[in-house]
Order: sequence, then structure tokens, then C-alpha cells
Amino acid sequence: MTFREDGYAAVDWAARYLERLDELPVLAQVEPGELSGRLPRAAPEQAEPFADVLRDLDELVLPALTNWQHPRFFAYFAITASEPGILAELLAAAMQQNAILWRASPASTELELRVVDWVRQLLGLPEGWHGHIEDTASVSTLAALIAARHLTGRNVVVCSEHAHSSVDKAARMLGMELRKQPVDDELRMSLDGLDLADAAAVVATVGTTSFASVDPVRALAEQARATGAWLHVDAAYAGSSWILEETRWSQDGVELADSLVVNPHKWLLVPIDCSLLWTSRPSDFRDAFTLVPEYLRAAEEVDSLADYGPALGRRFRSLKLWAVLRCYGAEGLRAIHREHMRLARLFADWVEADPDWELAAPLRFSLVVFRKKGSDDENEKILECANRSGEIFLSHTRLDGRYVLRLAIGNARTTEEDVRRAWEVLRT
Amino acid sequence: MTFREDGYAAVDWAARYLERLDELPVLAQVEPGELSGRLPRAAPEQAEPFADVLRDLDELVLPALTNWQHPRFFAYFAITASEPGILAELLAAAMQQNAILWRASPASTELELRVVDWVRQLLGLPEGWHGHIEDTASVSTLAALIAARHLTGRNVVVCSEHAHSSVDKAARMLGMELRKQPVDDELRMSLDGLDLADAAAVVATVGTTSFASVDPVRALAEQARATGAWLHVDAAYAGSSWILEETRWSQDGVELADSLVVNPHKWLLVPIDCSLLWTSRPSDFRDAFTLVPEYLRAAEEVDSLADYGPALGRRFRSLKLWAVLRCYGAEGLRAIHREHMRLARLFADWVEADPDWELAAPLRFSLVVFRKKGSDDENEKILECANRSGEIFLSHTRLDGRYVLRLAIGNARTTEEDVRRAWEVLRT
Repeated sequence: MTFREDGYAAVDWAARYLERLDELPVLAQVEPGELSGRLPRAAPEQAEPFADVLRDLDELVLPALTNWQHPRFFAYFAITASEPGILAELLAAAMQQNAILWRASPASTELELRVVDWVRQLLGLPEGWHGHIEDTASVSTLAALIAARHLTGRNVVVCSEHAHSSVDKAARMLGMELRKQPVDDELRMSLDGLDLADAAAVVATVGTTSFASVDPVRALAEQARATGAWLHVDAAYAGSSWILEETRWSQDGVELADSLVVNPHKWLLVPIDCSLLWTSRPSDFRDAFTLVPEYLRAAEEVDSLADYGPALGRRFRSLKLWAVLRCYGAEGLRAIHREHMRLARLFADWVEADPDWELAAPLRFSLVVFRKKGSDDENEKILECANRSGEIFLSHTRLDGRYVLRLAIGNARTTEEDVRRAWEVLRT
Repeated sequence: MTFREDGYAAVDWAARYLERLDELPVLAQVEPGELSGRLPRAAPEQAEPFADVLRDLDELVLPALTNWQHPRFFAYFAITASEPGILAELLAAAMQQNAILWRASPASTELELRVVDWVRQLLGLPEGWHGHIEDTASVSTLAALIAARHLTGRNVVVCSEHAHSSVDKAARMLGMELRKQPVDDELRMSLDGLDLADAAAVVATVGTTSFASVDPVRALAEQARATGAWLHVDAAYAGSSWILEETRWSQDGVELADSLVVNPHKWLLVPIDCSLLWTSRPSDFRDAFTLVPEYLRAAEEVDSLADYGPALGRRFRSLKLWAVLRCYGAEGLRAIHREHMRLARLFADWVEADPDWELAAPLRFSLVVFRKKGSDDENEKILECANRSGEIFLSHTRLDGRYVLRLAIGNARTTEEDVRRAWEVLRT
């Protein structure tokens, strides 16, 4: 294999893929098992050229992709793998760093601490917080609950009924009891009857998955402090928007959190996986994971980031975050966030202006939750039809049992024209 | 940013990096904080060209790399990010798949199931096992213990005193009690006094980190069956070698395991992260993670791989495994394993032939554990000197309290000449 030639071909494939996204369906138009059925049942005995992999990428894999990079991907939370981030993944793989200890990769360990701190500053978070990278918010939240139980010796987790399913999953994995609080009219965790007396942790969400609603973090923080519960804030989606002063209202109280998760792979143009986990109590946090007893720690010892989460092996994920922050600059990232929120406002205005449609929840950040005035069945059919067209891809949720649609803006390639097209497709 | 030009430059950087490894020190020759001190304290306000990132990669990052790709990296377990694997990471990042559900990425879900099954066949594992990809063996083992506790309702984990620290860490994270069994003369878990009556799980290791010793899996499996304990086999390193018939002796009893972890990012040329987790009890395993109750599962439902592990978000890791298996072929991978074991045998022979040196543990797979006849201090100094030279990088362990050296062969670029050089450096 000639690495350079194959490498240029891979870059060309990636470039063409990004250029022709507009011609591809957003949602994969295949049946379950269609790709499996076309793949050989066993690995080849003899080596094949890399060009064959690229050929099969076009012929076999491409039709089975749901194109998350597509400008009309509006489902779940729309995300972007930006160009500098993509190329950084190539470089990280070439360097094959495995930062199990500082000396196993001083570069990975120190760059990670530094660029995560760059993000801390950009988001206006408190000085002195310790941040590192996990793969996903699921694992970040799992780690936070592990730290909470370790520190408090308690076994109860409290969150809102609209907290992300990863909280349910973490509690299930850890054998912790989960208590869900109802929400108020604005879909925020209600403080009525909230009792944290026996809680190991309370999870507050800034930007829930269904509605992007914002829990009353400050009030929760005060109650957590009073009862000794750990406050974990899940801002996996919305936290990135704190690069804008105008969204900092949603950060109120976050400075009192014990831990916080924000995913740059959601809304900061970094390819998946890149989930940032900060803690304001690094020593308590580390104590839940490290196998090095405190009395063996030398004062001058360097941080090993494996001491702050479940995995020992750690790849060089900070490289892509570094590349993206540099190649966009704070200014560039802010401009993208402002545009996404403008587009969401625009779409929400169209919905509100149309007598047949309505907003189902207040507009927050770049997520519009809406429905056609009519039955659940009708809304479900509209969504199915729209998604099957391949033109757009939206997802749904339920609000008080009713079927509602979600349009999430978060792809850097999305233009006003794309949003307009979505509105057209949905109405026809 | 012009993606093609920057992409070619990134490929060139990676190609040059791989070509000049031989000129670089294996272990980073920097002091703690050296890189940090040279990095800006804050993210740039304005966008910078990608070329600046590449420049800083050379000037700032490169000196702080411990070069895991170096042919004379013999520490921990030596690993390789092969060329097809590196390029597949670029492609995966460009496609930005996030396989939270089947339809969110039919390609990622189906390719993963298929290529993990390719590996199952290559390693001679039982038909019908369900396999998927986690990031690291730490997380695979954590997941296995979660499944074990969920199924058995018990809270005790049993492993050998030489099991990997990830078992300690998983038990600590889960709040499970860990019991360590002593080992016999060949560093295998002793069956003397082994009691699994209240054990949720027993972890057997095939290829321990310190000595590559092999626990008596069949006997452990039989005892686990009799007591209802879950048997998890950690073959993260040595499992890949089962592509050779001649190492299948170490697989005896593994067919009775409830779960098994093997890391292609350790010894199957796949860039980190790629840890394969199989279970012979998919439905029990899934039950520990899924939030979809059994009675809501439709018969025709497609597997969502997020239901088999901690994370919801899943990147397209199967792509690199697919690329590596195809571009090397089973034949190519077998040849590399045979060569690594030949080189380990050769080095062990030199040690045995030298009256000043001795093997400290039986040679297993491609790991040589040895020492200079003399004091611990002397051995420690030899290792420090050798590593500081930048010429080679080895790590150490302790056996019955004595300091011993480990030479782990696992890099595809390592030649007989590299191993000879290591022996020279150590002796002088």
C-alpha cells in the first residue's frame, strides 16, 4: 500500500462526499439487513487494495448512510464534523497516542488539559475547574454519578422527567435508584416536593433533548448544597451556545455545579466523539476512579487523565478540538451559533404565522418543537412522509402524550434555503 | 479552508511522520508542563489557517509525543495503527455517523455486526456469539460486570492477583467487592480455595498484562457454571493471536465464557480505539443496558448496538476494522503474528544464553519478561537509562516483589534489527 496515494484518494473521497451531500437522501433509504446481505460472510484470506475499500464505500456503504452531515438533517440534535476536525482525526490516528499515563503521551495529556480550558474560558465557566474529554455524554454522566455515589455513600439520583435517557441508563448500570421530578409549564424541573435529603446526586439539564428546556439550576444547586447532594449539570447540547453572551441567561447557577458535561461534537463542529466533563471538585472526583492511594501521590505528580473516568486507554481526542478552535476562531464559532438561532427563530415565526400549525413548546436555543393542528396520526404521517422523501430528516417527541415534531438546527452547512425547504416539504 | 489541499497536506504530514519514526526518540524527552507552557493560554479570536496547525504539530506537539508507532516501542503492549486503519478514521470522521439507533446509521450498525463476526470466525470463536465494539477493554470489562451483577443480583467479583487494573477500577466504580486469588507457579489463577458461591462474576485472563500468563479458563468456567457466576474472559492482548492455530491452546474453555473482550487496537493493527466485546448470552447482556422493556420489543426489530454498552452515541469504528481486515487479509495478519512471536522467542533465547541475564517468567505470546541477575536497583537503572536514551522504550513490572523488565513485541514495523538493537542498548 502506498500511503500517500491511498491517502490522497481518501481525501478526495471525503471531499466528494461533502460536496455532493445535497444530492444524497438525508435518511438512509434502505431496509434492515440490506447492507448485511451484500457484505461477504467472512474476511478475505488475501490482502485487497485500499482502492477496493473506497469502491465498496460508494457501492455498499453509501446507500446505508443516514447523512448526519447533510444540511437538511434536523433530527435529534443536528451536528457537524467540520473539515479541520476531520483532518485532525487522520493525524491523531497516525500518531496513535494512548495516554494511559502522562509519560505515555505528554502531548495528548497536556494539549487536552489546555484546549479544554480554552473552551472553559469561551463558555464563561469558573476558573480552576478541571476538565477532560470523554467519548459521549452518556459516559460523562455515568462518571459523574459514580463520583457522586463514591463521595456521598448514597444511592439515589434525582432528575426531571425530561432528563436524557442516559441518566436512566447510568442509574440502571450502577444499580442506583432514580427519582423523576415532574416539570412546570415551561418544561423545567419543578421544585415542588423536591427532596434531596437522601440523594447522592441531582442532575439538572440545560437544554433538554425533547424541548431544550432549562432546569432551575441555581435553586437546585442551593438545595443540593444544603443536603450534601452532588449537582451534575447536563448541558451536552446547549452548553456550547454559552460562547454567546446572549444565551448566558441559561448558565445561571451552573457556577455552583459539582460537574458539568458539554459536547463539542454536538454543537461545536468537532467530529464525534468529544464530550467535555468538568468538575469543580477535582480531588473528590478523581478519588472515585484512581487506583493510586492519596498517600502515594507525590506533590509534583502530573495528572493522568485516566484517573478521571472509566477508561484507561485514551486516544488523542484533543487534537480535533484544538484544530477546530483554531481554524474557526471564537469569532467564527459565535457567528455560526448566531446564525443557527436566527434560522430557528425564522422557522418558528413561519409556524406561528400559519393558522394550521402551532409551536408546541417555547423556542429555546436552536430547537423548534411544533405540530400541525390536528391528530397525532396526521402529524406522524407528515413526519414519516417527509423523512421517507429523503429531502429532510426530523425526529419527534411526546408532550403530555401528544405527538410533536422537532426541528433541530445545528449543522454548519445549513442555510436559510434549507430551512425554507423543510417548511415546504412539511406543508405538502 | 480548501479541504482537498489541507487534506493532502495532512496526508503528507502523516506519511512523513511514519517515514521518520526511526529518527525520533521512542519515549518523549520532555519535562512535565513543557508543552503546556508553550501553548497559548486562550483560544484564538480569529480563524487561523490549517497550515498553522500542521506547523505547530511539528514545532510544539511532536517533541511531546511518546511514539507508540515507533518500531522500538516495547513498553506496555506495543501496538500499531496501520495505514488502512488511519485512512479509515479520516473517512469515518467525514461521514460523522452516530449510530444511536439502527436507522440513525444502518451502515455503521450492520457493518459493525458483520466485521466483528469476521473476527469471531478468524479467532475460532463459537457461532452465534453477539459481538460489538467498545472503545477500550476497561469499558468492555465494566460492561461485562454490569451485566453479571444485573443478572445474578450478586455483588462480588473474583479475579487473579495479576488481572488487569481495569477489573479493580470497574469494581470500584460499581461499588462491587473484589476478591483476588493468588497464582500458581506459572502465574495462572490458582483454583485452591476458590469459592464462587456468592460471586456475580469471575474474570479470567488470557495473556495477563504483567506476564502474558493464561488462567485455567475451562476449570473456571466449570466452577462458574456450577455456582451461577458470570465468566468474563479478558483476552484484550492475547486474543488476537488466536488467528494462529498454534496459539489456540490458550483458548481452551473460552467457548464456555459468558463474555469475552479482545482488542484489535492492541494486536490487530487497528488504530485505538477498538475493543471487541462478545457475549454468548446476548439477551441477558442487553437486558442490563436497554431501556426498552422486553414486552415492547417487536420480533423483527433491528439491533441497536447502544443497547449492549454504556454509551448511546456511537461513532463508525467498524470502518477501520473493515479496512484493516481487507487490506491485510487473514494471511497478512497471521504472518505478522508469527513474526512477532519469532522475534520474542529470539530475544528470549539471547537472554537465556547470557549468563548475566535471566528470564523471569515463561515466554508467552510475544511478551518477554526478564532481568539482569543483580539487584532491583541495577535493573531499574538499566531501564531508566535505556528509556532516557530515546532509542528504545520498555516498561517494568514486579514479580514476587522483584523488579523485572518487559519487552512486548506488537508493532508491525518492528524488525529483527530493532529487537537486536534493544538487546544491545540494554546490555550497555
